[in-house]
Amino acid sequence: MQVGARYLGNGHCTFTVWSPDVEAMAVQIVSTAQTIPMARSQGDYWQVTAQDILPDTLYFYQLNNQESRPDPASQSQPQGVHGPSQVIDQAFEWTDHDWAGVALEDLIIYEIHVGTFTPEGTFDAIIPRIQTLKELGVTAIELMPISQFPGDRSTDDPSAYRNWGYDGTYLYAVQNSYGGVTGLKRLVDACHQQGMAVMLDVVYNHFGPEGNYISQFGSYFTDSYRTPWGSAVNYDNVHSHHVRNFFIQNTLYWLREYHLDALRLDAVHAIYDLGAKHILAELAEHVEALSNEQNRKLYLIAESDANDPRVIRPIEVGGHGMDAQWSDDFHHALHALLTGDQIGYYQDFGKCSQLAKAYQDSFVYDWQYSPHRQRFHGNVCRDRPSSQFVVCIQNHDQIGNRMLGERLSHLTSFEGLKLAAGALILSPFVPLLFMGEEYGEEAPFTYFVSHSDTGLIHAVREGRKREFAAFHAQGEPPDPESAETFEMCKLNWETRTEGQHHILWMWYQQLIQIRNTMPALKRQDHLETDKAARTHLKAGSDN
Amino acid sequence: MQVGARYLGNGHCTFTVWSPDVEAMAVQIVSTAQTIPMARSQGDYWQVTAQDILPDTLYFYQLNNQESRPDPASQSQPQGVHGPSQVIDQAFEWTDHDWAGVALEDLIIYEIHVGTFTPEGTFDAIIPRIQTLKELGVTAIELMPISQFPGDRSTDDPSAYRNWGYDGTYLYAVQNSYGGVTGLKRLVDACHQQGMAVMLDVVYNHFGPEGNYISQFGSYFTDSYRTPWGSAVNYDNVHSHHVRNFFIQNTLYWLREYHLDALRLDAVHAIYDLGAKHILAELAEHVEALSNEQNRKLYLIAESDANDPRVIRPIEVGGHGMDAQWSDDFHHALHALLTGDQIGYYQDFGKCSQLAKAYQDSFVYDWQYSPHRQRFHGNVCRDRPSSQFVVCIQNHDQIGNRMLGERLSHLTSFEGLKLAAGALILSPFVPLLFMGEEYGEEAPFTYFVSHSDTGLIHAVREGRKREFAAFHAQGEPPDPESAETFEMCKLNWETRTEGQHHILWMWYQQLIQIRNTMPALKRQDHLETDKAARTHLKAGSDN
Repeated sequence: MQVGARYLGNGHCTFTVWSPDVEAMAVQIVSTAQTIPMARSQGDYWQVTAQDILPDTLYFYQLNNQESRPDPASQSQPQGVHGPSQVIDQAFEWTDHDWAGVALEDLIIYEIHVGTFTPEGTFDAIIPRIQTLKELGVTAIELMPISQFPGDRSTDDPSAYRNWGYDGTYLYAVQNSYGGVTGLKRLVDACHQQGMAVMLDVVYNHFGPEGNYISQFGSYFTDSYRTPWGSAVNYDNVHSHHVRNFFIQNTLYWLREYHLDALRLDAVHAIYDLGAKHILAELAEHVEALSNEQNRKLYLIAESDANDPRVIRPIEVGGHGMDAQWSDDFHHALHALLTGDQIGYYQDFGKCSQLAKAYQDSFVYDWQYSPHRQRFHGNVCRDRPSSQFVVCIQNHDQIGNRMLGERLSHLTSFEGLKLAAGALILSPFVPLLFMGEEYGEEAPFTYFVSHSDTGLIHAVREGRKREFAAFHAQGEPPDPESAETFEMCKLNWETRTEGQHHILWMWYQQLIQIRNTMPALKRQDHLETDKAARTHLKAGSDN
Repeated sequence: MQVGARYLGNGHCTFTVWSPDVEAMAVQIVSTAQTIPMARSQGDYWQVTAQDILPDTLYFYQLNNQESRPDPASQSQPQGVHGPSQVIDQAFEWTDHDWAGVALEDLIIYEIHVGTFTPEGTFDAIIPRIQTLKELGVTAIELMPISQFPGDRSTDDPSAYRNWGYDGTYLYAVQNSYGGVTGLKRLVDACHQQGMAVMLDVVYNHFGPEGNYISQFGSYFTDSYRTPWGSAVNYDNVHSHHVRNFFIQNTLYWLREYHLDALRLDAVHAIYDLGAKHILAELAEHVEALSNEQNRKLYLIAESDANDPRVIRPIEVGGHGMDAQWSDDFHHALHALLTGDQIGYYQDFGKCSQLAKAYQDSFVYDWQYSPHRQRFHGNVCRDRPSSQFVVCIQNHDQIGNRMLGERLSHLTSFEGLKLAAGALILSPFVPLLFMGEEYGEEAPFTYFVSHSDTGLIHAVREGRKREFAAFHAQGEPPDPESAETFEMCKLNWETRTEGQHHILWMWYQQLIQIRNTMPALKRQDHLETDKAARTHLKAGSDN
């Protein structure tokens, strides 16, 4: 069941929203104050096909003839998370009909935070840089989440909306300050024109705290489990099929309407689903069907902290059927060796043999005791090919979760950076670069946010200070709510052609060329590596 | 790491207990008031090998030189759940050296509640009945849980301890009123002598409310999940490997020390473990190793409400590796057809096609919408052979969860009973009989319990009334805390040779003989059935 406002053309628009416990539901048109009653259909979906609704019409849903609330499946929130939703005509002059996508093994991913990648902080501003990324050898850009998040809507300045994106509350709405629906489509179309895939980071494990009206519509949350960020999404309890539908439709919506090539699912270990068909497997089934329909392979890539091979095993044997998953162990093993860091999760790393194990087995922790976690962690995944693992030497989390947001370039020598780049690009895994790492960007990437709720602002500031209380010798963490912190994180893109930055850039470019010209590098199979190594060792001992 | 008191002979006994947060731990000998300090070893296990400790010695652990508490891994609680633990010499004159076990496909299970199966309510009282069960064709008895539970210890009357067993708090202690350690061993030995396997029901999803001191020793519980019965066991959080060890050792203890053939794991859907290696899979690995060591196949059979094939899929593909699981759908489909019941979970059943689906696919609900659950339920398990499913037409839960504890014999005609028996015994699954069903026992089997905590007694009584409030036209539920309720549930074993009871008994006996002489009946493969059916249908349509 599609949810939200579907514009049909000729002023016709179908509105659909799931809400089991209300007695009445209506569409409220903002400009005319007209209310259009909706009818309850099977499964407690409220629906109406209205006439004389033009694209861009602003509306609310009115629950029980009382509260007016934005559409949980709003495709646009031009006035922010507390404002009305907007009817969107999804028609667009696509020029990517010949686009066939990029194979999993050929992915070289470049992670972008839209707000800080360019001075403008918009989708459109990314387009002129695609050519440069292409020259570097990148084959896919991955956008950090772009679902509508809070900000100061009293100004038109895009920098009034500052957010990593993981606190979004409108899963279908493209962030207005980034350029909205059409801006995103222009970017994807331009990328495909130049042979670049586009991936989007989506958050299905929780909703942000501000502008979160969705629970007023139905049982989207459950008390059965606790997430680190608040209520868990109800994937397996009463009415969960309607909640699941909301997320399944969301996945299909991004892939179908925006021609995206892949979704990166944030922190799937916090998606609690103990039913017999995991929501990830159900998503994978739908995406496979869409791939077949569109005749190009679409990907689901999970971020998971669980080191669980089940995530990427095929559905037929009970896996979740994700095409790939992030593997932090590679990063941690390399980072701890290069920097000597032993704080937090780095205490589990620091041995050369661990980096070797990451290369060979993907997971370093595949059911060993983890001192940081104080429990056993992970499981053996040697049945999965290395192309199912996305690795990095830095990403938004690894940088931004540090008090001062230091990149690897702040923490190791230039030679160290080159070594790390080689270790990454020549690995058998799918490499992911964080924007700017290819030329040793010097801007930090720290945590920033722009709530409008003063209580939240205070809570975030204090939380951040508390989190880093042990580091007070290094000073205070930058104020996450300030505009300066955000501005400080913007890339100095022009430096990429200067001095050592340029040398590093060319180093990355050459590594990628080597990777591309030696297919063996990126198609490594665990068991074959192992066998080859054993044969080699045996040959050595025989001589 | 073995936990508890291990008697080594010659007055030597090693005591081991895990307790990470205490500063001191000692063994306190009750008879002498002597305290023997324990030493903290790796992993926060406290240990001492003491001398001059004779078998049957009573002891407590003394935490921080203050509170005295029973041993969480106590093998005997002769004075009940609040009393001291007892050192057990596990030596026993076993006579079952030639016992080779029963193959999964050959299991015909007979479920027994020790307290009500015989007038005496003891292990020893079961022994004279083994021969009769053998004549019937039963190949395994399955004991409802026998871990020490609360009761009135002011009397020696076994009927002062009344409990289904699912509220046990000492997972290693054999219920004293049933006959304790030696009583259980005598029963198992006698069964094996007569070619009868013995299975034990164990509860790894929660601990009972009374006599539950285990949380004072360490983080055995977690707040991350909620169970219907209280705190969830900590299988995947900080220190979980020590908690897991407690349960792994428990499984091995029952199989090794008591020569049991299989464990039935209660309600595994309430075992929350989101780590990458599920505790069930880890249990299965250990049991497989023990099977290999003992050169006879030991089984783990899960009760699961999830209709999840993962439970019984092999570990190699990410399953939990259970040998079999209970499948309630077969029962519900048959029960709803026979009785017309449409209350509670029976509202999901009542169609003939559902019984047919249960035969063909094992699960009726393999990702269909369940009106009772108000969500989709189950998953397809056609890759698993039918011998991996245990089915019944009644069991302790299906009978005892009714307000009046009516057996099927109270709810359908004699011909209905015969039909049900045929449907069960000639099914391709592993059949389970509930004690007495083979002769149409007329005693009910209702819920009973004998807490000594007055607050709990009141709570249980009121809870039971509330649960059945909608049924008040049928009267009040029997008082679960009264001795009369318990006595009422005892079998009238002598009636098995009388009139229609005897006819039914012979009916069961003949059905089992038919099952045994036609191996095709019990080795049915889903896909083959399906193929045969299609071939048959096609042949029909061609003519």
